Amino acid sequence: MCERKIGVWLIGALGSISATVILGALALQKGLTDSTGMITAQEPFAGLGLAPVETMEFGGCDIRRGSLRESAHEIARETGCIDRGMLNELEPELARIERSICPGTVTNCGEAIDMLAGAPSPCRTSLREEIARATGFLEDFKASGGFRDVVVVNLASTEPPLEMQECHHDLALFEGCLDRNDSGVVRASTIYAYAAIRAGCPYINFTPSSGALFPALVRLAEREGVAVMGNDGKTGETLVKSALAPLFTCRNLDVMSWEGFNILGNMDGRVLDHPQNRQSKIQTKDAVLSKILGYAPHSRVRIDYVPSLHDQKTAWDFIHFRGFLGAKMSLQFVWQGYDSLLAAPLILDLVRWAEFATSRGESGLMPHLACYFKDPLGVDEHRLYEQFRMLVEYANRAAETGAEPPERS
Amino acid sequence: MCERKIGVWLIGALGSISATVILGALALQKGLTDSTGMITAQEPFAGLGLAPVETMEFGGCDIRRGSLRESAHEIARETGCIDRGMLNELEPELARIERSICPGTVTNCGEAIDMLAGAPSPCRTSLREEIARATGFLEDFKASGGFRDVVVVNLASTEPPLEMQECHHDLALFEGCLDRNDSGVVRASTIYAYAAIRAGCPYINFTPSSGALFPALVRLAEREGVAVMGNDGKTGETLVKSALAPLFTCRNLDVMSWEGFNILGNMDGRVLDHPQNRQSKIQTKDAVLSKILGYAPHSRVRIDYVPSLHDQKTAWDFIHFRGFLGAKMSLQFVWQGYDSLLAAPLILDLVRWAEFATSRGESGLMPHLACYFKDPLGVDEHRLYEQFRMLVEYANRAAETGAEPPERS
Amino acid sequence: MCERKIGVWLIGALGSISATVILGALALQKGLTDSTGMITAQEPFAGLGLAPVETMEFGGCDIRRGSLRESAHEIARETGCIDRGMLNELEPELARIERSICPGTVTNCGEAIDMLAGAPSPCRTSLREEIARATGFLEDFKASGGFRDVVVVNLASTEPPLEMQECHHDLALFEGCLDRNDSGVVRASTIYAYAAIRAGCPYINFTPSSGALFPALVRLAEREGVAVMGNDGKTGETLVKSALAPLFTCRNLDVMSWEGFNILGNMDGRVLDHPQNRQSKIQTKDAVLSKILGYAPHSRVRIDYVPSLHDQKTAWDFIHFRGFLGAKMSLQFVWQGYDSLLAAPLILDLVRWAEFATSRGESGLMPHLACYFKDPLGVDEHRLYEQFRMLVEYANRAAETGAEPPERS
Amino acid sequence: MCERKIGVWLIGALGSISATVILGALALQKGLTDSTGMITAQEPFAGLGLAPVETMEFGGCDIRRGSLRESAHEIARETGCIDRGMLNELEPELARIERSICPGTVTNCGEAIDMLAGAPSPCRTSLREEIARATGFLEDFKASGGFRDVVVVNLASTEPPLEMQECHHDLALFEGCLDRNDSGVVRASTIYAYAAIRAGCPYINFTPSSGALFPALVRLAEREGVAVMGNDGKTGETLVKSALAPLFTCRNLDVMSWEGFNILGNMDGRVLDHPQNRQSKIQTKDAVLSKILGYAPHSRVRIDYVPSLHDQKTAWDFIHFRGFLGAKMSLQFVWQGYDSLLAAPLILDLVRWAEFATSRGESGLMPHLACYFKDPLGVDEHRLYEQFRMLVEYANRAAETGAEPPERS
Repeated sequence: MCERKIGVWLIGALGSISATVILGALALQKGLTDSTGMITAQEPFAGLGLAPVETMEFGGCDIRRGSLRESAHEIARETGCIDRGMLNELEPELARIERSICPGTVTNCGEAIDMLAGAPSPCRTSLREEIARATGFLEDFKASGGFRDVVVVNLASTEPPLEMQECHHDLALFEGCLDRNDSGVVRASTIYAYAAIRAGCPYINFTPSSGALFPALVRLAEREGVAVMGNDGKTGETLVKSALAPLFTCRNLDVMSWEGFNILGNMDGRVLDHPQNRQSKIQTKDAVLSKILGYAPHSRVRIDYVPSLHDQKTAWDFIHFRGFLGAKMSLQFVWQGYDSLLAAPLILDLVRWAEFATSRGESGLMPHLACYFKDPLGVDEHRLYEQFRMLVEYANRAAETGAEPPERS
Repeated sequence: MCERKIGVWLIGALGSISATVILGALALQKGLTDSTGMITAQEPFAGLGLAPVETMEFGGCDIRRGSLRESAHEIARETGCIDRGMLNELEPELARIERSICPGTVTNCGEAIDMLAGAPSPCRTSLREEIARATGFLEDFKASGGFRDVVVVNLASTEPPLEMQECHHDLALFEGCLDRNDSGVVRASTIYAYAAIRAGCPYINFTPSSGALFPALVRLAEREGVAVMGNDGKTGETLVKSALAPLFTCRNLDVMSWEGFNILGNMDGRVLDHPQNRQSKIQTKDAVLSKILGYAPHSRVRIDYVPSLHDQKTAWDFIHFRGFLGAKMSLQFVWQGYDSLLAAPLILDLVRWAEFATSRGESGLMPHLACYFKDPLGVDEHRLYEQFRMLVEYANRAAETGAEPPERS
Repeated sequence: MCERKIGVWLIGALGSISATVILGALALQKGLTDSTGMITAQEPFAGLGLAPVETMEFGGCDIRRGSLRESAHEIARETGCIDRGMLNELEPELARIERSICPGTVTNCGEAIDMLAGAPSPCRTSLREEIARATGFLEDFKASGGFRDVVVVNLASTEPPLEMQECHHDLALFEGCLDRNDSGVVRASTIYAYAAIRAGCPYINFTPSSGALFPALVRLAEREGVAVMGNDGKTGETLVKSALAPLFTCRNLDVMSWEGFNILGNMDGRVLDHPQNRQSKIQTKDAVLSKILGYAPHSRVRIDYVPSLHDQKTAWDFIHFRGFLGAKMSLQFVWQGYDSLLAAPLILDLVRWAEFATSRGESGLMPHLACYFKDPLGVDEHRLYEQFRMLVEYANRAAETGAEPPERS
Repeated sequence: MCERKIGVWLIGALGSISATVILGALALQKGLTDSTGMITAQEPFAGLGLAPVETMEFGGCDIRRGSLRESAHEIARETGCIDRGMLNELEPELARIERSICPGTVTNCGEAIDMLAGAPSPCRTSLREEIARATGFLEDFKASGGFRDVVVVNLASTEPPLEMQECHHDLALFEGCLDRNDSGVVRASTIYAYAAIRAGCPYINFTPSSGALFPALVRLAEREGVAVMGNDGKTGETLVKSALAPLFTCRNLDVMSWEGFNILGNMDGRVLDHPQNRQSKIQTKDAVLSKILGYAPHSRVRIDYVPSLHDQKTAWDFIHFRGFLGAKMSLQFVWQGYDSLLAAPLILDLVRWAEFATSRGESGLMPHLACYFKDPLGVDEHRLYEQFRMLVEYANRAAETGAEPPERS
C-alpha cells in the first residue's frame, strides 16, 4: 500500500499553513523532524495502515503572486523554531513545488481577498468556465504525478459568509444556478469544492468559509462517492474551549460569561480584520459553547489583527462562573501558539484519513473527523474528548473489518 | 426512602468547609438556595432516588475551640457571596448543631496541627482508648438522631504523610500495633477511620492525609461491609489539570513542563505552610499529570500561604509544550475559586453516594466516585471526563438493577 | 476652617459611584471606615488644611427613577466588600439624601441614555430654560444647606462624543447658540457645566463626556473665577498603563503593540455597550500611550459589557515589545478592581481640591490634578508619577504661601 | 575621544549573557543591528560623548570549558530571534575572542558552581596567589590591546551569600585575612573584584553575589580612585515591580500581598536551583518592595528552574490590595523576556558609564547607575523612574561641566 503515491492539492498554496505543511512533510520524508503534532502518529492509529507521509506529493493553487520559499523563510524567521540548516536543505524541493503552483480564483470573495490578489477580481469568465479551469489544473496534477488519489485541502483565506438559500440545499437547483451563471450563490471555495468532487477528489475544508460544503455539495459528494469534511480547523482557543467547557457541566457549575479575545498577526489575521470575513470565523467559534453546556451563557469572541504577533496566535479567555450558594468565581487562560505549526500536522492527518476513507469506499461526510474541526459538519458533538473517542472508535471498527478494503474500480 | 434521616458526622466540624456544608444544607432544606455545584443534582442522577439533602442532620468533632457561627460569618465576610439575611435566618440552627460538636483527637498529627489545637497534644490515653472515645461519640450521635446510617467525612487539616509499613498492608498486624499502643503507625485520621468502619459507618476521606485509608483499613471496610472512599477532594487546580491534560494527548503535543503555583489563605493554607503537611498535598496533586500523559514532564506544584486571600484559592499554571517541527508554545491558566464553596456541594454529593452504596449493600472502595478525588483510591484513571463517565455508568447500572436494593439486616 | 460646610452636588446621583461616594463619606464621618484610597489622606497633603470629609453634605440629580439605598445595597451585594451592619446603620441618612435628589436632563444624550431615563427625552423646553432649571436646583441646595461652596461633580453616564465646532472655542458664539436654542451644540453635560460655572460652583467632569468642558466653557470658568477640571477619572487599565508605559522608555525597549481588553458589567458598562458612547471612552483612553512613548505603537482598546461582572472591571492588556537584537518579548497584566470603589475616594479628593482652589481664589483649569484623569485638560503629561509629582509640587507651593488664602468676597 | 579603545573583561565569559554582549557589540560595530535596549542610546544621553560601542574589545575568563560560538548558537536557537546570517558573519570574530578566554577561579563558590566547573575546586593555591593570577590575566589583556581602560564586569553564576563579618567593613582587617589565607571570608567574586580594583579597573557586579562589593572593597576602590557599582542587574520581574509598586502609593491603596513566581531554564536557573545560591538572588529581589511602599506586605519571591524555558524568563506576580471601604482587588502580571537579551545592552551601557566616570576622575560607588540594579549599592531609592531621573540629572550635570574632564595621569 505504501508504494501508492498520494497527490495533495492545496488551495492557498503560498500561505503560511501550506508552506508549513509542505516543509513539514518534506522534513518528515527526509527524517529531519518527528511526527509530534500529528494525531495519526499515535498508538491507537498506528496499525491501521494509513498512507505514510512519505507517499505524499504536493501541488496547489493560489490567488497571490508569491514564493513558497519566502513563506517558509518567513515562518522560520517569525516563529524562530525552524532549523535554518533544514530549511536550506529543503529549499530546492520547495522551489520545484513552487513552480507548479497554479493561479486560483477570487470569484465573489469580497474585497479583503481581492486586495490580497493584488487586483480587483475580473470575473469575466462564467462559473462553468471557472470550474472547468479548476478541474483542468487538478487533472493535470493527477496525471503528471500518476496519483490514484488526489486529496484537495482548502487553506485559502476566510471568505465572507455565504447566505444559504434554497439552491444550497438542492443539488439540481444549484446546478441550474451554475448553468445560469448566477455568481451570487457561490464563492471561490464553492468552485474548488465542486471541481474537486466532480473530479472524484476528496475535499477537506479547513477554513470557516461556508461556501465550500453546503448541503447540496455534500449531496453531490455522496452521489459521486467522494469523501468530504469540514469546517474550520480547530487549533487554538476553540480547542481549549472544547476541552475545558465540559468541566463546568461535570461539576454543575453555572457558566455566566465566557469572553474570548484573540489576537494574531499573519495573513489570516489580516483578512479577518475585515468585518465580513471575521464574521465567518466568529460564527464557527461561537456555537461550540452552547452546544457543550446545553445553555447559552453571555459570550463573545473577538479576533483582532496585531501585526507584530505574526503567526503567534494569542488568546485570553475569561470564564465567569457561579457555584454553590451563588459564589462567583473565575477561570482565565492564555493560549500562545503558532497558528501554522498547530494546523500543519492536522492537514497531514486529514490527507491520510481522506485517502483511507477513499480506499475503503466511504463517501459523503466523515463525521469521525469531528475532533479536527471547529464546526464539524453533520456532528453535534463539540466536546473534544468525545470527538476523539469517535475517531478511536472509527479506527477500531476499521481495524476489525480488516486490511481488505472494498473493491475499487 | 426519603423519610429516612441520615446522620452526617464531620471531622473538623468547625472548619470553613464544614461550616459551608452545614450552612448550605440548611439553606437547601429551607429552599433559600439552589443546588448549583452538586453533581448529583444533575440529570443523569436525578432518577436514582438518592437521599435528598433534606434528610441530612449534622454532627461532628473538632480539635479546636471555636464557633460554627463564627466560621459561617467569616466565610460570608471573606467571600462576600453569602446572603446575610439567609445567614441570620439559619443562625439558631447553626447554634444548635454547634453545641453538639465533640472534641477531636490530635494523635500524632504533627506540630502544625497541635498548634491549631491550642495546646500540645497530651496523648496520655492509649490508642484503644482513643478509638473507644471516637466510637462512643459516633454511637451517641447515631442513637440521639435515630439514624439508620451515619456517614463520616474527614474534613480535618492535612496531616504529615504517614510512612507506609508492613502493618499498613496487613490488618492483623495493624490491629496488633493498636493493641501494643504503637502510636507511630497511626495518625488522628486513622483513629477516626478505624472507629467509623468498626461502627459500620461509611467513611469519606476528603483530605490528602494518608493515615486515613491505607490498605489494611480498606480490608477492614470490606470485611465489615462498609463503603469507604478517598483521598483528597478535587476542587481547583487539579480539577482543571485533569480536564486539560488530555488535550495534549489528543493532539500529540509534547508537554515539556507543567508548573503549578497555588496561593491560598484559609486554615488549610496555614497548615499547608508547614513543609510536612504540604508534602501530603503535593503528593496527591503530582501524580495526576504523568498518569494522564503517560510520561512525566518537568513538573512542580507549589502551595503557598497568603493570608489576605483567605478562602480564595488562586492558582497559576504554566504549561510549556512542543509541537510540530519542534515549535515551543504555551498555555497558562489562572483559577480563582472559593475553596469551601467548591468543596461543600461535593461533600453533600458524597454523603448521598455513600448512603446509596450502603443501601445497596456495597462495601469497600467506591471507585465510581473517582471524579471527586485528586488521588482516587483503587483507580488509575485521572482524566476528569473518563472519571465522570465511570460515575454515569455506575448510575446507569444502578438504575437498571432497579429500586430494590439487596436486603439489609 | 473645618466648621465650614461644603455642599457636594452629584450629577448621576443614583448611580453606583455616587452611592459609594455618599456611603463612604458617611462611613468616614462616623469613623466606620478608614481613608484608604484617598490620595489626600497621605502624608504630603496632610498639613494643607484641606476640608475634612466631615464637612461635606450631599445632594444631586439623576435622570433615572431609583433609590440611593438600593444602589448602595446592590454595590454591597455585588462587591461583597461592604459591611452590612455599617450599611444598615447608614440607611436612614441615605434615605434622607435620596429624598432631595432632583430630576436631571437628557438633552441630546443619545438613545442609550434616553433608555436609561425610561422614556424618550421630551426636550420640549429651551436650552435656556434647561439651564435655568439646573441653576435653580443648585441654588436651592446651596441655600438650604447654607454652604459657602458647592462643588459639582459629573458622574453621569458617558455621552456620545460632541463634535467640536467653532462655537465650542468661542464663548460669545457659544452663548449665541444657547440663545438661538441650537441644541445640536450641547449635551446634558454642557447644561450642567454651564449652570454650575455661572452659579460660581467648581465643576469636576469625572466622565469622558466631551460636552462638559470644551474651551469656551473653560473660558467662562476663568471669567467667572471658578475652578474646573476633567476629563474622565483614571481608575483602572489606564492607571496601570500610565504607570507601566514609561518603563519601556526607561529601558529603550520598542513597544510594537499594546492591546487592551476591558470587560465590565455595571451601568457604565451597559451604556458603553452602545458604540457611540463607547467611542468617547476609547478616545480618552487611547491617547495616553503615544503621549508617553513619543510614538504610536499598534494599539487597540476594547470595552465590552459583561453583565455578570457587575462593578468588577477586569482588564487584560497584552504588550508586545522588541528588545536588543530584535528579540520579541511580552508583558501581560490583568487588573481586577471594583470600579465604584476605586472612583469614590478620588471624588472625595477632588471635592477637597476644588474647595481648596476656590478658597485660594484660583480659577479655570486645575492642571495639578492631572493624575486623577485619563485626559487631563490642559496637560500633556500622562506619566502617572510625573503627574503625581505635579500634585506634590502644587501642595508644597501652597504650603509655602501659607494658610492665608487670598481674601474672598 | 572615539579613537580610544576600551577593554571589556567579562567574568563568566562563556555564559549566555557574555555571548550576547559580545555578539551584540560586534553586530553593532558592523551596523548589523540597532541599539534598541541600550539606555545610553537615547536622547538625554546622546550628547555626553560616551565611548561608542565601536571602541570596545572583549576578553574575559570562565571556570567552564566551553565555546563562545556554541553559546551564541545556543542563544540563537533557543530564543529564535537572532539572525543566522549575522551569526555566521560574526563567527570568526567570536572564535578569535574565544581563544583568548582565561581560566576563572571557583574559590569558595559552593557545590553548585563547582559542578559547573566540571571538577571539585582544588583551591590548592593561596588567596594571594589567586589574586595575582587574576591580576596577571587582566594586565596581559590591557597590555595586549593597548587599552587605557579595562572595565571588568562580573557575569558569573550567582554564589551563595557571603556572611558579612567585621573584616568586610574594615579594609585593613580584610587584607589581613587575605595575608593569612583565610578563604572563609572571600568568594571568587571577591578575588576578581580585589584584583580589578588594585589593577585600577572599574568593576561592575551584575550578579547578586555579595562577595563582590562589600564595604571594605568599596573603600579600596575609593582609595585607588576606581569606579565600581552593583549589585544584580534589574532586567525582569523586579524591573516591573519597581515600575508598578509606586502606583499603590500614588493611589493610597494598601498592598496586602505581593507574590512573585519566576521560572527560567538557562544556566542561571540551573545554579539558582540550589537553595544557597537562590538565597542570594531572593535577597536582592525582596527588599525592593518594602523600600518603595514604606511597609512590608506579605511577600514571597520564588525562582524555579524549568529547563525547557531556557533563556526565556517567565514571571507571574499576583498583587492583592485593599482599597476604599476595605474592597479587595488584584493586579497580576506575566513577564516573558529573554534574560540574556535584556541584560546584554545594559552591560554595554554600564561599560560606557564606567569608562565615562573614569575619564572624569570619579571613584568609588556610582549611585547614579541605580536604575540598572536590583540592589543598588549606596542607594535607598528603588522606584524605577526616580532612579532614572538620577541618571538623567547626573548626565545633565556632566553635560554642564563640559566635555573637559579632569586631568588624568
